[in-house]
Amino acid sequence: MKEFTEVQIKTLEEIILHRRDVRGNRFLDKKVPQDVLDKIVYAGVNAPSVGFSQPWEFVLIDDQEVKKKVKASFDKENKKGGNQFEGEKADKYKQLKLEGIIEAPINMAVFYKPSNSPTLGQTTIEEAGVYSVVCAIQNMWLMARALNVGLGWVSIIDPNKVKKILNAPDDRQLIGYLCLGYVDKFYDNPELERLNWEKRKDTSDVVKFNGY
Amino acid sequence: MKEFTEVQIKTLEEIILHRRDVRGNRFLDKKVPQDVLDKIVYAGVNAPSVGFSQPWEFVLIDDQEVKKKVKASFDKENKKGGNQFEGEKADKYKQLKLEGIIEAPINMAVFYKPSNSPTLGQTTIEEAGVYSVVCAIQNMWLMARALNVGLGWVSIIDPNKVKKILNAPDDRQLIGYLCLGYVDKFYDNPELERLNWEKRKDTSDVVKFNGY
Repeated sequence: MKEFTEVQIKTLEEIILHRRDVRGNRFLDKKVPQDVLDKIVYAGVNAPSVGFSQPWEFVLIDDQEVKKKVKASFDKENKKGGNQFEGEKADKYKQLKLEGIIEAPINMAVFYKPSNSPTLGQTTIEEAGVYSVVCAIQNMWLMARALNVGLGWVSIIDPNKVKKILNAPDDRQLIGYLCLGYVDKFYDNPELERLNWEKRKDTSDVVKFNGY
Repeated sequence: MKEFTEVQIKTLEEIILHRRDVRGNRFLDKKVPQDVLDKIVYAGVNAPSVGFSQPWEFVLIDDQEVKKKVKASFDKENKKGGNQFEGEKADKYKQLKLEGIIEAPINMAVFYKPSNSPTLGQTTIEEAGVYSVVCAIQNMWLMARALNVGLGWVSIIDPNKVKKILNAPDDRQLIGYLCLGYVDKFYDNPELERLNWEKRKDTSDVVKFNGY
């Protein structure tokens, strides 16, 4: 049985702690080699999946025209999103750079592909299929960081617009839209913590024992 | 800027490849020390979260009475689930051990706690909050494996029954129910691949470029 060492456990912890959500102002105009992208996707396809259904699809995007269309959806949704905040937060929101669609050399749209027959483990909780795709994204996020590639997850876009832009079949569901590329630096802390947008929670407040 | 080495990249890849979904027949009756559980939870709370919302709650369970109630929900849902398969698969399903609720020394229910005010990044895609919780689960799964602790995700349970058993507030959503413990071994391949339930997909079939 493969056992991991103290040093290896520490390595995983460091990768987890140094992973950041990267925005456009950090990406470098530097090509990400195909073998690096392959390693990232390999981490994704080796994620857990309900009933070993592997219900994921990855669309790699380097076409600036495609990116521009996605960026247009972001701009629209971001304006609507910003309007939901009031006072100081509304002002702060406008100053935030929340995506790197154009700046990142590679974008990746990650889709959920539902099965047309029953999937083991998904018979009660239908969302378990989508959760598998999120596990794949998190594996890729960690692998990207280990490879010193920044990744930013853009969630302020209309999933159906992106589906249309990418000609995705009707049954597909966009789960994540990711921006990938080398960066000038990774921050030590999450950007929204650094900017005092949100505070870090105490772990003791989110852990319970045997019930609420 | 923290840069990771080839050896460290390889370590992450190995942890990802050796992570398994662990069932009851593999768990050992051996206590998981609190500092090991703390390390696993620490990996969870350092997952990415939309708008740095950290919308997760973790309920650790070692009470056999609580586990028995959850197991009763599994039994009911598993019977219903099994009925969805036909022929050879129906027979095979009945022979599968799909959870380790009682056998695992520790169970963990992971909840999503929605915010009552707008969350940055969640204004278009409401599900982004739930996805953050799944990222936390995947971080914990990898850290558990690095610590040589097995983890199995049980998705064949009624989330509302589990909420009731654990006295969870109305607004909480159960995302994952996990079984944790030391194991006699980790399989080299996913159990459902080993048992020929599903085949591994070719990566080339799930990767597209610039659209479908």
